[in-house]
Amino acid sequence: MSALAEDRLRHETLKDEIARIYGTPAVVIDLDKVEANIARLQAVCDAKGVANRPHIKTHKSPELARLQIEAGARGITCQKLGEAEVMADGGIDDILISYNILGEQKLGRLGHLQRRVRMIVAADNPVTIAGLPQAAEIAGRDLEVVVECDTGRQRAGVETPGEAVELAKLIAGSKGLRFAGFLMYPPEDGWARTQVFLDTANAGLREAGLEASIVSTGGSPNIPHIGELKGATEHRAGTSIFNDRMQVAAGVASLADCALTVYATVVSRAGPERGILDSGSKTLTSDSGGLDGHGHILEYPAARIAKFAEEHGFLDLSASNDRPGVGEIVRVVPNHVCVVVNMVDRLVTVRGDRLIGDLPVAARGKLV
Amino acid sequence: MSALAEDRLRHETLKDEIARIYGTPAVVIDLDKVEANIARLQAVCDAKGVANRPHIKTHKSPELARLQIEAGARGITCQKLGEAEVMADGGIDDILISYNILGEQKLGRLGHLQRRVRMIVAADNPVTIAGLPQAAEIAGRDLEVVVECDTGRQRAGVETPGEAVELAKLIAGSKGLRFAGFLMYPPEDGWARTQVFLDTANAGLREAGLEASIVSTGGSPNIPHIGELKGATEHRAGTSIFNDRMQVAAGVASLADCALTVYATVVSRAGPERGILDSGSKTLTSDSGGLDGHGHILEYPAARIAKFAEEHGFLDLSASNDRPGVGEIVRVVPNHVCVVVNMVDRLVTVRGDRLIGDLPVAARGKLV
Repeated sequence: MSALAEDRLRHETLKDEIARIYGTPAVVIDLDKVEANIARLQAVCDAKGVANRPHIKTHKSPELARLQIEAGARGITCQKLGEAEVMADGGIDDILISYNILGEQKLGRLGHLQRRVRMIVAADNPVTIAGLPQAAEIAGRDLEVVVECDTGRQRAGVETPGEAVELAKLIAGSKGLRFAGFLMYPPEDGWARTQVFLDTANAGLREAGLEASIVSTGGSPNIPHIGELKGATEHRAGTSIFNDRMQVAAGVASLADCALTVYATVVSRAGPERGILDSGSKTLTSDSGGLDGHGHILEYPAARIAKFAEEHGFLDLSASNDRPGVGEIVRVVPNHVCVVVNMVDRLVTVRGDRLIGDLPVAARGKLV
Repeated sequence: MSALAEDRLRHETLKDEIARIYGTPAVVIDLDKVEANIARLQAVCDAKGVANRPHIKTHKSPELARLQIEAGARGITCQKLGEAEVMADGGIDDILISYNILGEQKLGRLGHLQRRVRMIVAADNPVTIAGLPQAAEIAGRDLEVVVECDTGRQRAGVETPGEAVELAKLIAGSKGLRFAGFLMYPPEDGWARTQVFLDTANAGLREAGLEASIVSTGGSPNIPHIGELKGATEHRAGTSIFNDRMQVAAGVASLADCALTVYATVVSRAGPERGILDSGSKTLTSDSGGLDGHGHILEYPAARIAKFAEEHGFLDLSASNDRPGVGEIVRVVPNHVCVVVNMVDRLVTVRGDRLIGDLPVAARGKLV
C-alpha cells in the first residue's frame, strides 16, 4: 500500500472510531496543530516585544488557556464575566474583560472575582465608570480600568482622543479605580489612524498627569500588524489558536493550520447533485463571515455547503465530480470557529490520526 | 397615575428584578402566552381532525412538552436522538424522530430508547433502512418507520412517489421494521402538489398491499393549511409555541403572540445614532431568517439591530426619535426563536409583569 493510501486508511479508521464513541456531528481539534498555533502567536509577540494576552472566546477552555500561559502569555482576555469566572476557577490569575460591565449583579460578581485574581476591565462611558467602584469596594482593592477606543470599527469605544482622555480623568478621579490604559481594536487597514489616535490621547494624558501602562490591540487578522503601533504593550488574538476559513480568506492562516474540524455524516442524497449533512446551523452556525458557502469540506473541496436548516447542511455537489454517499463521514473546516465551539459541551481531541479523548468547553454559553 | 403608566412601571420593575437575579442578556418566556399558543395550535388540530405532534426543537424542554401533551397532543417530534432521550426521561412516551438515523452508536441508543417508549423514525434511503433493524433487535420489537418525502423543499426526502413506494416495500420486507407511513414537509405554497404526490404514493402502496397509517405534515407557517391534505393524520409544528419575527412576517402570528423575548442591556452609546446591546450572535444568533434587521425591540420599534459580533448587537438608532441610554434594558423579539433557545441553559419564566422563576433547556445542544 502506498504511504498516501495508508494515511487515508488511518484517517478513515479515526473517523469510524469518533463516530462509534461520540457520534456525529463531532467537533474535533488536533492538539498538534493547536500547540503549533499557540507557539506561532507567542513567537510573533516575543519577536515584536508585545505581551500576548489571547482572547479565550475562541476555545472557552481553561485547559487550553493554561497551555497559552505556559507558552508565555501574560494573561488572558474574556468578553464576559461568566467566562472570567470559569477561567479563574481553572487557575488563570490575570484577566482582562474587554467589555463594559453594568448592573449590580455583575458588579458584585466582578468584585468577588477581583478578590481572587488580577482583573482589568474596559469602559467607554461614564455610566459604566460610575458603577465600577462597587466592584472595587467588594474586592477591597483598586480595580484597573482601560478606556475602550474606537479607531474605525464602529463597535464600542469612544470615537475621539479627547473623549478617551476625559474618561481617563474620570476613572483616575473615581474612588477605588485606577486608570490603566487604552483598549483598541484597529481595523486591519486602520493602524496608521490608530497611531494618530493613540499619540493624541497620550499627549492629553501627559497634560493631565496620567499615563497608559497598558495599550492593548486586538484581532487574529491583525497578527501581521503586531508591533506596528508604537506604544502598544499587549495584543489580544482569539481565533488563531484554531483558525478557520475566515482566517484563511484573510491570508493569515492556511487550511493546514486549521486545528478544528467538524466531523459530519452525509444522511441523505435525495438528488444526484444534492446531499444533506447532519451538521446545520445548530453546529456550524449561520455566521457566514461574509464568505461564499458555509464551510470547506476537506474530502470534497468542490462541494459547496449552500445553506442550513438547524440540523441540515444542504450540499450542492454539482461542481464536484467525486460525491459522497449516504453514511460517509466528512470533515468540515468552519467559516467562523469561535461560534462553533460555543455550540458544544466538549471538543473531541486528536493528534494527527490518533484519537486522544475530549475536553470540556467549560465556559460555553456564558452569556452573562 | 394612568393605567398605562402603571403598566410601564410594573414592567420596569420586572426588568430590574430579572437583571438583578439573572443578569442580561436573559431569555425570557411569558407562560401565559406559551399556554395560549399551545391551546391555539391544539384547537386548530382538533377542529381539522388532525393529530397534534408538536416539534420540540423550539423549546427543548420536557416540562413544556408535557404541557403540550396535557393540552391534547398525541406525542412529540424530535430532530435528534439526544433530544428524544431527554424527552423520554421527562416522561414523554410517543416520539417521532423526523431524521435519518445512521451509524452503530445511534442505532444502539435508538434500540434502548425503543424499549422504553414508542419510537417512530424517518428514512429516505436504503442505507438508513439497512441499519434500522439493529435498533429493532436491541428493542426486541418492531420499529415503525415513515418514508420522508420531498414535495418541493429540496431538503431530505425522496423526490417521487415511485421512490417512496419502493422504500415502503423495502421497509416492509426488512426484519424488525414496520412501514408506518409518510413524513412530509410541504412548502407553504406546495400543498396541491403534495396531494398529488400522496395520492400517487397511496395508489402504489395499495398495489403492494401496504397502507400508510401515519401521514405527517409539518411547519408552523403551515398551520393555516392543517387539514388541507386529504389523508393527513398528524401535524408537526414547532415555532408556534413561542412565535417570533419570522412567524409575524409570515402572517401566522402577531407580535403579541410572541412569548419569548431577550432582555438586553444597552452597554455603549459611542455615537448619537449608534448603540451596542449586550446581545450579539452568541444570544440571538446570525440566523436572520431572511428579514431585515436582527430582532424587533419592543420599546424602540424604529431602532434597527443592524449587525452582530458575538457579544455585540449593533444598534442603528438613526430612524428612532426615542433613543435608549447606557444601562437601559430593552426587550428583543428574535427573528428565529428556535435557535435562540438552543443558546441558553435555562429560560427565565414570567407571567405578564410577574417573575415566576426559570426552566432548564434540558435538550439544549443535543447535536447527536
